[in-house]
Amino acid sequence: MSFRFEIEARDGKARAGRMFTPHGEVETPVFMPVGTVGTVKGVPQDVLEELGVQILLNNTYHLYLRPGVETIRRLGGVQRFMAWDRPILTDSGGFQVFSLSDLRKVTEEGVAFRSHLDGASHFFSPESAIAAQIGLGADIIMAFDECTEHPAEYARTQDSMEMTLRWAARSKKYFAEHRNEVPWFAGGLKSAKNLYRRQNGRAKAVPLQSEGRSKSGEVEHVHPEGQRQALFGIVQGGMFADLRRESAQRTVELDFPGYAIGGLSVGEPRPMTYEMVDAAIRFLPEDKPRYLMGVGTPEEIVHYAAQGVDMMDCVLPTRAARHGLLFTSQGRITIKNARYATDEGPLDPNCGCKVCARYSRAYLRHLYASKELLAQALNTAHNLAYYLDTMRRVRDAICAGQFGDSLSVSKICPGE
Amino acid sequence: MSFRFEIEARDGKARAGRMFTPHGEVETPVFMPVGTVGTVKGVPQDVLEELGVQILLNNTYHLYLRPGVETIRRLGGVQRFMAWDRPILTDSGGFQVFSLSDLRKVTEEGVAFRSHLDGASHFFSPESAIAAQIGLGADIIMAFDECTEHPAEYARTQDSMEMTLRWAARSKKYFAEHRNEVPWFAGGLKSAKNLYRRQNGRAKAVPLQSEGRSKSGEVEHVHPEGQRQALFGIVQGGMFADLRRESAQRTVELDFPGYAIGGLSVGEPRPMTYEMVDAAIRFLPEDKPRYLMGVGTPEEIVHYAAQGVDMMDCVLPTRAARHGLLFTSQGRITIKNARYATDEGPLDPNCGCKVCARYSRAYLRHLYASKELLAQALNTAHNLAYYLDTMRRVRDAICAGQFGDSLSVSKICPGE
Repeated sequence: MSFRFEIEARDGKARAGRMFTPHGEVETPVFMPVGTVGTVKGVPQDVLEELGVQILLNNTYHLYLRPGVETIRRLGGVQRFMAWDRPILTDSGGFQVFSLSDLRKVTEEGVAFRSHLDGASHFFSPESAIAAQIGLGADIIMAFDECTEHPAEYARTQDSMEMTLRWAARSKKYFAEHRNEVPWFAGGLKSAKNLYRRQNGRAKAVPLQSEGRSKSGEVEHVHPEGQRQALFGIVQGGMFADLRRESAQRTVELDFPGYAIGGLSVGEPRPMTYEMVDAAIRFLPEDKPRYLMGVGTPEEIVHYAAQGVDMMDCVLPTRAARHGLLFTSQGRITIKNARYATDEGPLDPNCGCKVCARYSRAYLRHLYASKELLAQALNTAHNLAYYLDTMRRVRDAICAGQFGDSLSVSKICPGE
Repeated sequence: MSFRFEIEARDGKARAGRMFTPHGEVETPVFMPVGTVGTVKGVPQDVLEELGVQILLNNTYHLYLRPGVETIRRLGGVQRFMAWDRPILTDSGGFQVFSLSDLRKVTEEGVAFRSHLDGASHFFSPESAIAAQIGLGADIIMAFDECTEHPAEYARTQDSMEMTLRWAARSKKYFAEHRNEVPWFAGGLKSAKNLYRRQNGRAKAVPLQSEGRSKSGEVEHVHPEGQRQALFGIVQGGMFADLRRESAQRTVELDFPGYAIGGLSVGEPRPMTYEMVDAAIRFLPEDKPRYLMGVGTPEEIVHYAAQGVDMMDCVLPTRAARHGLLFTSQGRITIKNARYATDEGPLDPNCGCKVCARYSRAYLRHLYASKELLAQALNTAHNLAYYLDTMRRVRDAICAGQFGDSLSVSKICPGE
């Protein structure tokens, strides 16, 4: 088995589990920081390790455009490319195509779009999106879906959901036929040069070698032959509970090792998000990981864990940090506020992160007001620490059987 | 004694020494990274410690404008403000007033200038520049000088040099009368609140307390009562060897614990810089540290160490890093070059820094091409490692008696 999910404890609808992937284990529920182009903006990989990040998300759309899938494939996959030896998940590119690119045109075949970088024309189909994700070599990859716009009429949402289901089947079929092309088998560029050969005019990795060595020699990770990526399906269905249910049921019929709920947090009111998650999650199998894409605030990630969600990702902690909005156990702090100019206290007296252990609010305020690079790095490290600590407390509470109705969100996440 | 300098070894004109300052020892010759507004752009303080940075330079002009001297004084001085427990040197602000500010007007009294940030009017005199540096509380501070523009006629250069000498005497006098006002005596903000009192309408620190505790409790540093900043004089004299000699001799007559050579690297050809350094340094006392301001390339810092310079600072390694120019044992690398797009080798195979140990040129090239924040942080950390390693090799060679004519610059600094 290349991918396995085990549930270790339950508390109400919440579960504490463990995912086994080719690049290591992940304790769930887990928050996945977003490393869009192969970097969590401003934070070096050793700091991510110290923070206890277990799995990162990379955006296929961005890496496909720059540096390109073939570059990363030749370098041994995205883990080796970014010198990150722990698990990575790539999204399908679907959401970014819809939110970032210009002049997109959606057909049954796929999506024609123009790069937000240079306007060049590109095309993503279920097949090419999966091919890209195989080339990048993340541990968990996502079926290509259409993220239905919000608001959308019922008929339009239903059509979109149906196409996402057909695309999911095509994604699965392509993956089954090409999953051996993952670049981990090659031992870096030098070996890759020998192992790659042109087949039918396309570069293809030949899985002869069962061992990978990092170029620095510091980290050795072995991927026994037969280790495979896991392809997750994605539930769509817009803001209609019956479509969410139908999408969940029919995606499950396609049989994936994990299921995501997509197309939420796209501008709808929060109670509607809660309702849609509830409508879908009850039809997802108990023994497979459930991934809610693109959420949320600290309060929300606690809420969704309580609903039985196992995986979440969001740009909020990192993006907010870069704009000086910091999450603390005492509430949110806008660090540019003049009141912090002579505040020698730590950002969050209840936080054990390196930023709170060393620097004062006065210094962080000065860095932000002075538009210094270090502000972005320190703010981001702290916000990630806050999210990861929150999720660790959630998991500990589930394992201790104390995450039921008796434990309020405000105890796990006191700042909200 | 608050400041002491000991020479441990000599090799030709080069010396290996040790400076003792209130915040610790510094092995010389030393390269001081520039942390303009209280941060080496993009590099956290723990990384600077890991790199072996022994002393930082902060710019008085920048800190005076933002966050302001009184803010830093109330927070216990710039070391505590930036959570850096090792020595710091501040420049006098003279160079920045001349190079950055608008509408400056120089008189015998001082320099009226407008802030480059908001155009507000300010005035630096020898007295106010020293007052600012006492408030910031660096271990080593600099006399207020006029950095003579280049090119300049002989008479103009002589007049400027004479004024710098008068300003040096005024700087020394003000420092002698106010050196007890350094903020180290107060134990952080809470103590400072009690210790500060309004005297004649100006905040003044009262040195009652001999011990300082860091707010995090992690680092304890004690500054016994009587520990004092060291005020260095600055040699000017433009590009005229006889004026450099006269400036050196008459600055030495004023008697400072250390001497800087200023007003060089302002656009003149390099052989002229070498000549001016030589003209001045032979008249500086053997038993005092010599600081050449604002230099240089890796090759140049080796050259100046060979001429008997003990301290140097330069924005080159940090600024070049932010523009993708990297110093390596194999020569300079422009990391954005497409040839590095699939280069899985380390930036510098002979470098032991964390960046070279972990990341590939391909990844660093991708970060730079994608304008990612992490590019700045990693590039800067590497360039600083290269400079600091170069200076360590110089010092080791001096101590081993192998830094004479027998050891060429190219062995110390093979990439140049």
